[in-house]
Amino acid sequence: MTSRVERMQRMAAARTDVLSFAGGLPDPEIFPRAALTRAFLRAIGHSGAPALQYGWPEGRPALRELIASRLRARGCSVHADDVLVTSGAQQAIAIATQLIFGRAKMVRLDPETYSGALELFRARGLDITLEAHRASGAYVMPQIDNPRGQTMNQNVRRELVAQARRRELWLIEDDAYADIVFAGEPGKPLLAEVPESTFHIGTFSKNLCPGLRVGWLVAPRPFREGALEIKRESDLQANSLAQSILEEFFADDDFEGRIAKARRLYRRRAARLARALRQYLPRWTFEEPKGGFSIWVDTGRPGDDADFLKQALAHGTSFDPGSLFRVGEGPTLCVRLSYSCLAERSIEEGVKRLAAAYRSFAREPARASVMVKVKATA
Amino acid sequence: MTSRVERMQRMAAARTDVLSFAGGLPDPEIFPRAALTRAFLRAIGHSGAPALQYGWPEGRPALRELIASRLRARGCSVHADDVLVTSGAQQAIAIATQLIFGRAKMVRLDPETYSGALELFRARGLDITLEAHRASGAYVMPQIDNPRGQTMNQNVRRELVAQARRRELWLIEDDAYADIVFAGEPGKPLLAEVPESTFHIGTFSKNLCPGLRVGWLVAPRPFREGALEIKRESDLQANSLAQSILEEFFADDDFEGRIAKARRLYRRRAARLARALRQYLPRWTFEEPKGGFSIWVDTGRPGDDADFLKQALAHGTSFDPGSLFRVGEGPTLCVRLSYSCLAERSIEEGVKRLAAAYRSFAREPARASVMVKVKATA
Repeated sequence: MTSRVERMQRMAAARTDVLSFAGGLPDPEIFPRAALTRAFLRAIGHSGAPALQYGWPEGRPALRELIASRLRARGCSVHADDVLVTSGAQQAIAIATQLIFGRAKMVRLDPETYSGALELFRARGLDITLEAHRASGAYVMPQIDNPRGQTMNQNVRRELVAQARRRELWLIEDDAYADIVFAGEPGKPLLAEVPESTFHIGTFSKNLCPGLRVGWLVAPRPFREGALEIKRESDLQANSLAQSILEEFFADDDFEGRIAKARRLYRRRAARLARALRQYLPRWTFEEPKGGFSIWVDTGRPGDDADFLKQALAHGTSFDPGSLFRVGEGPTLCVRLSYSCLAERSIEEGVKRLAAAYRSFAREPARASVMVKVKATA
Repeated sequence: MTSRVERMQRMAAARTDVLSFAGGLPDPEIFPRAALTRAFLRAIGHSGAPALQYGWPEGRPALRELIASRLRARGCSVHADDVLVTSGAQQAIAIATQLIFGRAKMVRLDPETYSGALELFRARGLDITLEAHRASGAYVMPQIDNPRGQTMNQNVRRELVAQARRRELWLIEDDAYADIVFAGEPGKPLLAEVPESTFHIGTFSKNLCPGLRVGWLVAPRPFREGALEIKRESDLQANSLAQSILEEFFADDDFEGRIAKARRLYRRRAARLARALRQYLPRWTFEEPKGGFSIWVDTGRPGDDADFLKQALAHGTSFDPGSLFRVGEGPTLCVRLSYSCLAERSIEEGVKRLAAAYRSFAREPARASVMVKVKATA
């Protein structure tokens, strides 16, 4: 899908003069390079060099235990054996999808959701609905969702949990952004409430760094063997080197302290972006994020977000078109603005450019959005 | 599939007193730890730390160019843009399988083939045949095959190529062991002869180290966009860190010299194993490998290879049961013996143990093999 949007995004990424709200990348400034280097040197020194050798498909034991212990701290009953280490959260979603949607092919999504999951569900031929009672599985981000940065409504959560308890619904819980919460600590995962129906998915891509491609899946017990088989058929095992580095890294790093620092950094940037949007684009509406990397903005005006993106690039800024995240067509043009990878001092200038781009764009005659490719069933 | 065999293999792997012919692992002694460490330090030092950040789904440009240039040296017309970097060769096989076998679900295999591919084809519900004219795709290892370590028969090759030229057959060319050839240089890939019908698959797992999980797929042009989409849906991208390390590693390493050394090492071990087998198990038959990591042995006697494996473990040795690699049931018990990860001085002692185990096993009443789970169609 080298679509028009993707071609523009790639051009933007190659330009150093663009102040970009696109991508949803963590800030490389907070990647712990020194600590990861120490971890690498320890990992590669081990006898037999397991960091460079084949490993078992389920992943390395100490890493699985670390993942399990962090979930236990949030109220889940999880042991190392319950954790399947995956090649990032995306693979964990793909495995869960393969396990859940055999013949019954209806998945419940939020109206706006993670674009990578949406692409996957469409490619697998699933029907998409917003109504949980019609679906056999629901893909959700209860703690901090992408793209909105919001926590799931408590009534919605209660209903999903009740349905899952009655064994009427599988839950695919994407916990990727849970650690990036701006107030308090990450809440209790669905996995703690309905482990028998929850496929819990996590990753070190947001709270540490994405380049290691280490995520995980905790599937309901009856699905564990199947998950392992799919993992093995897909790519044998997660990266040995990355797993070994993580094991060494966690053995002597103040990871929780590091996460606290990351939360403060992203919270400041979120506040900065919200302030600038109110100042320079006062008609745009948005909810201030409770965590995560981005603000979901409704321009209140119909239009083609690819056309708007073209204007943005001409003005030296960029964003992710809302249609990438939307389950159905919306009446108005929405965009995802990521503050995560833009220095605080550049955010205001970025928004000024965005406002200028929007003024140019808004002068053009409005067209209905033509980007949405798959109709939602609700 | 935590089968009885797998449980035994896992137990064996955890024991330090076992002289193991199992696993097909490269020898960690030849992993270039110092060079990879230098490469890591350079990779992690780059501004913006791309080694730790998200990357594009197709892989990093310099690495794709390196892979393309090595294929060009073997007569293929391949450019960096033609290469999709994958999470190991297994993922490349999985992507090719998904692209080729939509409705037409018959794959042609060698009678003995790579177990990971066999598992994948079975899991995807493909019908398996030995006859190319019945199949829509053929999975082959023309240079050095696994488990036999042989080069494809020239008549077979000519027929496959002719069929592929007539667009009657897709070729999945697994080139994983091509660099581990004991005489001369790796031959011309099928990709050089019928690029329009060949899905070419390679990996750095055998000639460098498996823990980085970096492989590649060169698909026929019309399939490239589809391959990229599947890659993205599967796990977004190959490991950034591993790719960055490889880029730095290849920039200043004598990789071809390193491969030449590896060939000599494995050739000596293959010869040592063949000699010991002739001496201690003279009734077993095998063809001396032309490359690769293993010898495929026919014991000439029926029996359950899991029972034999149990005896082997009791005698302090191990191997891979032949049934894991076999498309159909064979009349006799076969095993794969990997010499790749056993020091030359230990090979004779390993074979002595194997011979003792075999004597114990052969004294038991013979049973028909019960391990083969899926019938072949030819």
